[in-house]
Amino acid sequence: MTHDNPCAVLHGVRDLRVEYRPRPAPGPHDVLVEIAAVGICGSDVHYYEEGRIGPYVVESPMIIGHEASGTVVATGTEVDPGRVGELVALEPGVPCRHCEQCMAGRYNLCPDVRFFATPPVDGVIARYATIDADFAHPSPTELSAVQAAMAEPTSVGVWAARKTRISVTDRVLVTGAGPVGLLAAQVARAHGADRVVVSDLNEHRLAIARDLGLEAVSADDLSTGTFEADVLLECSGAQPALTSGITATAPAARIALIGMGADDVSIPVPLVQGRELTISGVFRYAHCYPVALRMIASGAVRTDPLITHHFALDETEDALTVGRRDPEAIKPVVEPGRRQESENHR
Amino acid sequence: MTHDNPCAVLHGVRDLRVEYRPRPAPGPHDVLVEIAAVGICGSDVHYYEEGRIGPYVVESPMIIGHEASGTVVATGTEVDPGRVGELVALEPGVPCRHCEQCMAGRYNLCPDVRFFATPPVDGVIARYATIDADFAHPSPTELSAVQAAMAEPTSVGVWAARKTRISVTDRVLVTGAGPVGLLAAQVARAHGADRVVVSDLNEHRLAIARDLGLEAVSADDLSTGTFEADVLLECSGAQPALTSGITATAPAARIALIGMGADDVSIPVPLVQGRELTISGVFRYAHCYPVALRMIASGAVRTDPLITHHFALDETEDALTVGRRDPEAIKPVVEPGRRQESENHR
Amino acid sequence: MTHDNPCAVLHGVRDLRVEYRPRPAPGPHDVLVEIAAVGICGSDVHYYEEGRIGPYVVESPMIIGHEASGTVVATGTEVDPGRVGELVALEPGVPCRHCEQCMAGRYNLCPDVRFFATPPVDGVIARYATIDADFAHPSPTELSAVQAAMAEPTSVGVWAARKTRISVTDRVLVTGAGPVGLLAAQVARAHGADRVVVSDLNEHRLAIARDLGLEAVSADDLSTGTFEADVLLECSGAQPALTSGITATAPAARIALIGMGADDVSIPVPLVQGRELTISGVFRYAHCYPVALRMIASGAVRTDPLITHHFALDETEDALTVGRRDPEAIKPVVEPGRRQESENHR
Amino acid sequence: MTHDNPCAVLHGVRDLRVEYRPRPAPGPHDVLVEIAAVGICGSDVHYYEEGRIGPYVVESPMIIGHEASGTVVATGTEVDPGRVGELVALEPGVPCRHCEQCMAGRYNLCPDVRFFATPPVDGVIARYATIDADFAHPSPTELSAVQAAMAEPTSVGVWAARKTRISVTDRVLVTGAGPVGLLAAQVARAHGADRVVVSDLNEHRLAIARDLGLEAVSADDLSTGTFEADVLLECSGAQPALTSGITATAPAARIALIGMGADDVSIPVPLVQGRELTISGVFRYAHCYPVALRMIASGAVRTDPLITHHFALDETEDALTVGRRDPEAIKPVVEPGRRQESENHR
Repeated sequence: MTHDNPCAVLHGVRDLRVEYRPRPAPGPHDVLVEIAAVGICGSDVHYYEEGRIGPYVVESPMIIGHEASGTVVATGTEVDPGRVGELVALEPGVPCRHCEQCMAGRYNLCPDVRFFATPPVDGVIARYATIDADFAHPSPTELSAVQAAMAEPTSVGVWAARKTRISVTDRVLVTGAGPVGLLAAQVARAHGADRVVVSDLNEHRLAIARDLGLEAVSADDLSTGTFEADVLLECSGAQPALTSGITATAPAARIALIGMGADDVSIPVPLVQGRELTISGVFRYAHCYPVALRMIASGAVRTDPLITHHFALDETEDALTVGRRDPEAIKPVVEPGRRQESENHR
Repeated sequence: MTHDNPCAVLHGVRDLRVEYRPRPAPGPHDVLVEIAAVGICGSDVHYYEEGRIGPYVVESPMIIGHEASGTVVATGTEVDPGRVGELVALEPGVPCRHCEQCMAGRYNLCPDVRFFATPPVDGVIARYATIDADFAHPSPTELSAVQAAMAEPTSVGVWAARKTRISVTDRVLVTGAGPVGLLAAQVARAHGADRVVVSDLNEHRLAIARDLGLEAVSADDLSTGTFEADVLLECSGAQPALTSGITATAPAARIALIGMGADDVSIPVPLVQGRELTISGVFRYAHCYPVALRMIASGAVRTDPLITHHFALDETEDALTVGRRDPEAIKPVVEPGRRQESENHR
Repeated sequence: MTHDNPCAVLHGVRDLRVEYRPRPAPGPHDVLVEIAAVGICGSDVHYYEEGRIGPYVVESPMIIGHEASGTVVATGTEVDPGRVGELVALEPGVPCRHCEQCMAGRYNLCPDVRFFATPPVDGVIARYATIDADFAHPSPTELSAVQAAMAEPTSVGVWAARKTRISVTDRVLVTGAGPVGLLAAQVARAHGADRVVVSDLNEHRLAIARDLGLEAVSADDLSTGTFEADVLLECSGAQPALTSGITATAPAARIALIGMGADDVSIPVPLVQGRELTISGVFRYAHCYPVALRMIASGAVRTDPLITHHFALDETEDALTVGRRDPEAIKPVVEPGRRQESENHR
Repeated sequence: MTHDNPCAVLHGVRDLRVEYRPRPAPGPHDVLVEIAAVGICGSDVHYYEEGRIGPYVVESPMIIGHEASGTVVATGTEVDPGRVGELVALEPGVPCRHCEQCMAGRYNLCPDVRFFATPPVDGVIARYATIDADFAHPSPTELSAVQAAMAEPTSVGVWAARKTRISVTDRVLVTGAGPVGLLAAQVARAHGADRVVVSDLNEHRLAIARDLGLEAVSADDLSTGTFEADVLLECSGAQPALTSGITATAPAARIALIGMGADDVSIPVPLVQGRELTISGVFRYAHCYPVALRMIASGAVRTDPLITHHFALDETEDALTVGRRDPEAIKPVVEPGRRQESENHR
């Protein structure tokens, strides 16, 4: 068996190695995908820097990366062989289909889900990977591979919009203008929201928000009380953002906790009670990839301005650390088919 | 004008006086009620002990009490005079009917609501009081005045059950076996809940829960992980109860914050996200009195075991302080028509 | 009192007279509006042609018209006098604010609603009319009076979209390309619907739909089975449209019955059960005017292509009958301030 | 292979034969069940009398029956062998777990569901049958086999109650006091419904309803207008019941179409619109067996009064035809382990 499948393997804290492994064989219901693009997520960086996220610990070598797209190059025995050649976005969590959560349609809560790059499941920064064919979503033809890969963080926004039932009368506040916040804000707008305001402390990120046609305000200005939010999408994971966001809500507002950060956050009970606020935790997404791909294809959600850096597979470690070096980095992407370059990644 | 209307008036911290005021005249849409029973609520005690609750400050003398029932003795010009003689439960918050919240059906969030015994609005520990006729709910004939007065805390439970959509598949955990918790637990059972468990630190209160046919566990035993709650009704206002309650939830559980206590509470973000929990603040109630009265009338909700003390109007200060003296006090009631007695209130 | 208020008064079947009445005086909570534009609705035509709609019978002379806008010229004693000069859209049904339906937020179902031009309540084809200030909605400054008047039929679409919970994954079928269908389809698009298809038998109306950027198909082509609708907005009131629309639904689809026509319609039970379809009757609207006005102002909903004819108040009878004469008429508008012209109304 | 598995096989219209087939072998995720009781459903009778139900045609011999319980006697390789000996209720439709409907949690709408005794899938009036272990629901120990079998029609009621969101303020009207109606009414009561009224033309069935503690009225008395229903569970499949049921609804009522009969029914559009009624088709059930079993175990739903006749497997044809002979038959049950008797089946 030839080892023609280079992979970006995390061995421990700040120990990432490119290794050549055998090309995986698709199971009966799988497709084999030649990976074209993988976005780097904060969780990837966190595993690289800390070796763990909460209870998930990298105890044995694990391929990193989970925001991927690629081209189907082979199909399992039970899959339509006509899919070969399709550009697909890979939904990274494949659930068991049998548990109570799966049966209820909440497959994102499946306790037995196999989710790329969540220990001990391998991720997809590799030349080849297999995935259940149902979770390899056909990409609209107008999308580039990088755009298709952005279906992952876009799906987070779609799920949050669904959980908070964003519609045309809603004034939406998005705290945190990182990749997820910038995508979630555009997704909110695509739901017809009356108004979408993005807040952050980082002026560069607010400028990108404005380039995306979004209303952007400094987090410091939120507390002036001139804006009332029917929906708060908290994407920063930071206590001050949550606190000022809650303060800015209207009665009966809905709040989604999307950002991850502190293990505990404090909420102001008199406000939550007096306004009858509803706070929902959101975890990944379910049933969101197709609509996320359509939103990117229609231009309702623009992902290109977020893609600040491109890397070859051999440069995955650079991709994981670029955020430390470049304060204007938003979303780096690894393209396994890309030829390594010395510099100039934008 | 004769001053034939004795009232329990709070003048300041621990300064309660019985005063004789003129009998109020009902407005065109009001009824005049001869008050029969008024339950003492924690908020009444709080105003008596502290002179304020958060932003609400007793700045001028205010009649105390808001959990009331009584008999209609006169009607306004626009009200059916046939209502004279009715035993009614007085829903204490009369909204403006014009604001956005009222128009949306959320009259409990009306910013212009006039709520009994919330400064500067007078309460109802008095011989006579007036109220908008729509908020004087006819009591089923089988109810005593004290039972009818208990429609108020029962409505809190009804509202919480509605907010959390309790139904037949739900396992419900109620943290805090005070009056609201004991009523909310019975209300949950009346919604057909699969299982209702009440937890508290106070063994006496757990015994009452068991007398009411409820499953009761010591708060210390909650953390054993043997029980999973689809719905958490947090009625204690205490951080440890909220923390252990959240830990005991099932995926996709709904949580109602009912108890009032600390101004800020801490919530575990990884749990709230990983299980996609929904936390809702609840504030008073809307559209709940009629069904609360029916539940008490049918016996689905038993209020008698909660009524630990009875007082005459002249003894209102005793009613406000009995909780300090008697650790087994649950719900004292003032009955303005009751003859003052030396002791033995049970 | 000068009779300076010309009104279009329906006296009986095909008996419309322009009469001069006194200018009405606003009540304490009202505004007096100088009417600028009134759209003609199918119900106005129906009253003119038949003298009744179901149980509603024109038994005494009644001013016709209910899709109106105008300028505030005076305010009641309880209304902010600063509103004088505002262009407002008049929401035609003012509810009682006291009944169970009003209290529940469903004011459109108020049995005591006073709705313009529903016997015996006068409508607004007049120089002046009064209305409760809460129902005189400020129009965005960029709107013309005719556009503001179109908030009425647009609100029907908003309400139907809300009832059927249209969102970004929904494929929406609108049967009937009359004014309501053309507006409802645009409203569905403004909710981010994945796809919106309008069907009609009338090729001219389909052409207008296409001009509005909508997908339009002949009703005959619906049955080919190539399109599956998650939401059906039935705006024609015709049995064949309902039947073919239901046939075109996907499992778990939601259907709104908007069009009025036959008193009874037939529904295919095996389809309704086998697909678990939900059919909702919709009646007018509640809480929809502000968002309808914003959608028109933003261009998300274009009303101009629907306005086929303009008439002066003296020509109201022509406005009511133009549909008989001109098969391409969609929405005629009466402008009480308009000078009468011989012809050329477009 | 011994043919030790007697089965009731339908060969065509009124052609039912008892045949001996090999005992089936459980697949890896299946259990083998020794069938204890099978209720006879109207659909079984319909297949026997007509050879088809709508598009479903008995084209080759098919075992009849789908309301079953029994004892696990063997387990597939992937199933906990500790389940041998369990009394289980067999949920008759096993979905594909892969399609859009399954993934959405609506497995009752799975187009590839294999449902017992729906051609060409065999049913379970047999000594032995296999079923996916997830759909063999453990029965509470206090239940008899016949009671456990009644989880099937009870689940229809649970599903309808869930679809119509029955809760404590609802006045529920059940039209049709057959087995499904009598069970659905009890299920509605178990949801805490304010009031449950059953209507039928058959005085004997109304008497059974009263024995079950339900309020029962003659269908003729429904139209008197003294009762307003917030929820209508239409269980008769008859147009007059639907018509009078809809007439008896309150504004904003929810209606479930449960009964099957005419292919088309007529609905009164002005009522459906003017009251904003919602009509939902219901198809089988999903996620209902566990709670149905608990309701029977708790006594909230009593099934015994419905079981009018018991038959041995050899008498299946008698079971299918007893409804013709005995006007008081409600629910006949075949018990494959029962010794054949000459008569006296009650």
